[in-house]
Amino acid sequence: MKPYVKMNQEELLALQKELEQEFTAVKSRGLSLDMSRGKPSAAQLDISMGMMDVLNSSTDLKCETGVDCRNYGVIDGIPEAKRLLGAMSEVDPEKIIIYGNSSLSIMFDTIARCMSHGVMGHTPWSKLEKVKFLCPVPGYDRHFTMTEFFGIEMINVPMLPTGPDMDMVEKLVGEDPLIKGIWCVPKYSNPQGITYSDETVRRFARLKPAAKDFRIFWDNAYSIHHLYEEDQDFLIEILGECERAGNPDMVYKFTSTSKVSFPGSGIAAVAASEANLEDFRNYMKMQTIGHDKLNQLRHVRFFKDLDGLHAHMKKHADIIRPKFELVIRKLEENLGGLEIGSWTKPKGGYFISFDSMEGCAKAIAARAKEAGVVLTPVGATFPYGRDPKDTNIRIAPTFPTDEELSMATDIFILSVKLASVEKLLAQ
Amino acid sequence: MKPYVKMNQEELLALQKELEQEFTAVKSRGLSLDMSRGKPSAAQLDISMGMMDVLNSSTDLKCETGVDCRNYGVIDGIPEAKRLLGAMSEVDPEKIIIYGNSSLSIMFDTIARCMSHGVMGHTPWSKLEKVKFLCPVPGYDRHFTMTEFFGIEMINVPMLPTGPDMDMVEKLVGEDPLIKGIWCVPKYSNPQGITYSDETVRRFARLKPAAKDFRIFWDNAYSIHHLYEEDQDFLIEILGECERAGNPDMVYKFTSTSKVSFPGSGIAAVAASEANLEDFRNYMKMQTIGHDKLNQLRHVRFFKDLDGLHAHMKKHADIIRPKFELVIRKLEENLGGLEIGSWTKPKGGYFISFDSMEGCAKAIAARAKEAGVVLTPVGATFPYGRDPKDTNIRIAPTFPTDEELSMATDIFILSVKLASVEKLLAQ
Repeated sequence: MKPYVKMNQEELLALQKELEQEFTAVKSRGLSLDMSRGKPSAAQLDISMGMMDVLNSSTDLKCETGVDCRNYGVIDGIPEAKRLLGAMSEVDPEKIIIYGNSSLSIMFDTIARCMSHGVMGHTPWSKLEKVKFLCPVPGYDRHFTMTEFFGIEMINVPMLPTGPDMDMVEKLVGEDPLIKGIWCVPKYSNPQGITYSDETVRRFARLKPAAKDFRIFWDNAYSIHHLYEEDQDFLIEILGECERAGNPDMVYKFTSTSKVSFPGSGIAAVAASEANLEDFRNYMKMQTIGHDKLNQLRHVRFFKDLDGLHAHMKKHADIIRPKFELVIRKLEENLGGLEIGSWTKPKGGYFISFDSMEGCAKAIAARAKEAGVVLTPVGATFPYGRDPKDTNIRIAPTFPTDEELSMATDIFILSVKLASVEKLLAQ
Repeated sequence: MKPYVKMNQEELLALQKELEQEFTAVKSRGLSLDMSRGKPSAAQLDISMGMMDVLNSSTDLKCETGVDCRNYGVIDGIPEAKRLLGAMSEVDPEKIIIYGNSSLSIMFDTIARCMSHGVMGHTPWSKLEKVKFLCPVPGYDRHFTMTEFFGIEMINVPMLPTGPDMDMVEKLVGEDPLIKGIWCVPKYSNPQGITYSDETVRRFARLKPAAKDFRIFWDNAYSIHHLYEEDQDFLIEILGECERAGNPDMVYKFTSTSKVSFPGSGIAAVAASEANLEDFRNYMKMQTIGHDKLNQLRHVRFFKDLDGLHAHMKKHADIIRPKFELVIRKLEENLGGLEIGSWTKPKGGYFISFDSMEGCAKAIAARAKEAGVVLTPVGATFPYGRDPKDTNIRIAPTFPTDEELSMATDIFILSVKLASVEKLLAQ
């Protein structure tokens, strides 16, 4: 089929009619499908069920230092959990603090702490006239909503195939002392699945920020979430790179097992320099007597070590890889050559990023919704929910069953075609 | 034996010599005992071990609305957990939000939220010149340290046998719009074990605060933690009382299962009016995708209902009651009539509060430490760690074994005697 842009008015009208008929038929099926959130499927959760058995009433519930994990104490994590999440984060256990069930909460608390108490003795951000963050776009909606919640001004930085546009990052961070942070999902990024190139990571580590309390918020959410074991992306470890570059305190690195074990019942961690960890601990010791050590123990006894984590992630990959491939195959077969959209082919993570023709994304999502498919709200992948070109749609293929996903993708494709034809006809 | 104050110089010197000999003998034993923190003992933790078995790999892990508790979702708690902690808090489930493992964290986040975002649309506290809190004393050290952490000025309010001095509370709260909160542990208070009288609760509910965003922080930490089932204290339910008094939004009520199931691995909740809960939810939905629903399910399946909780607390009481009685019996037998100290005889909770002669508490703790007994740092039960009269010592009898507790109490008593004699000799 020829590209839509090459079609004349008559051809477009004929196509529109045909697509509308197809759409009416689909709509009449009254489907209810969801491609909106990066949630594991039930089948993925099933592979972690063994975790429910590792601790029982006859288990020794002491950690390796002899502390009874059932009682208060050990505020920053039992040693074996620090080792496990340290291995997952590629840093030494002593650079790790274990938190509760969510790395998102650690990030939120970190922003809250920087606002109320400042970074390593610097002026609390809430006392400054203005605070700004750089936001590589498209990016993770929850990063942006929490940043907005604290009244921090967000500046879009385009994502390139190598990661954020580092020319722009270097210029802005180097010039503006009000820029205090940047959000990064450096591996299998949300939503594009991009892994930052070696050069990008090295340039991050060598930033010369105008603000002494500038921090990179390195949300390594998908560090071991490969789709292809034999063809995985590699990411330079940022803490070590920052140290080598003479910027040991410039980064906070976050991780969690939310999409490894059970979302909501996992364990999360931050890795940072000792000076930064001191900031975290000072806040933490006011906020809690300690996190759930039994759940830390449960994770360590189940996964044992990094090999155990990798073996487990391979099972996840075996379940979700066909879903990614199904969506991408359908997109290629049905949209290839039409020049009405492009999409990423990630090697890991939880999302496929779709870019429509300019000004079509909202219309596509509205069409999909009409036919019973929920997509991530258009705009959510940008600060303030505003996609300036109205093109980006995040596709989350993991949660639906294969059958649901297949139907949802067909409807998505139909919606893309329809919205594109309408756009071209309106021009 | 006659009261120390009635002894002459010669008698005191003879007594001192005798006590010093005793002390030297005790010290030479090189003991290491801890009466400092309100931690359950291993025997208490053992009674909850069944909780480790209620969920296993063949358990249905859906909550009653059919939601898979293994996955993301249900931000404010599964219905059955709201019902269980609602019953424990004596409020309807819809007035409850379930959090993670710690009510202390809810309180901390609440203060942080009031500082950064304000209360129900009012000016964020961080934007005000000054914020003040009333602190009934003696009280819970962690309340005070977190309040200080946020730069809030603390004003001491004396505790009476009926609860805080309400004349003072009414006057201050009614006059000063900078007073935004008061800390209350209304039942079996920390450290005195006092339960607020009906009149006190009614006067709380009828406060006429100068500040529209004044809130009572009602930390009902020991609501079902009785020592004597047949002789328990009763506390008027504050949310209902505030509603009846036309002040439905004036209180935040906190609870947790930390000293019911496992400290650090329990579940916690806040109860408040719908308008207040909206504030909590607006913050919460930025901070997390949801708390640990599997642990919520674990608690509900283990305790089932309020009767189950009460039956369980009875087992706790059977273990800790003899410890309280041992300490109190030893205090009575050895310090009774000496007029060098007084102590509370709580019917629940986790502490006994001891008041020495003025200016002796630090010396007592120093002596105890010298002989191998760690007490709660003197002053910790007051804001800024400053006990103006240097009299209050919090005794935590639950954690040590009966044998350890017996030895520790003997050493404590000896330390009280020695410090008192020294004080009298120095006058």
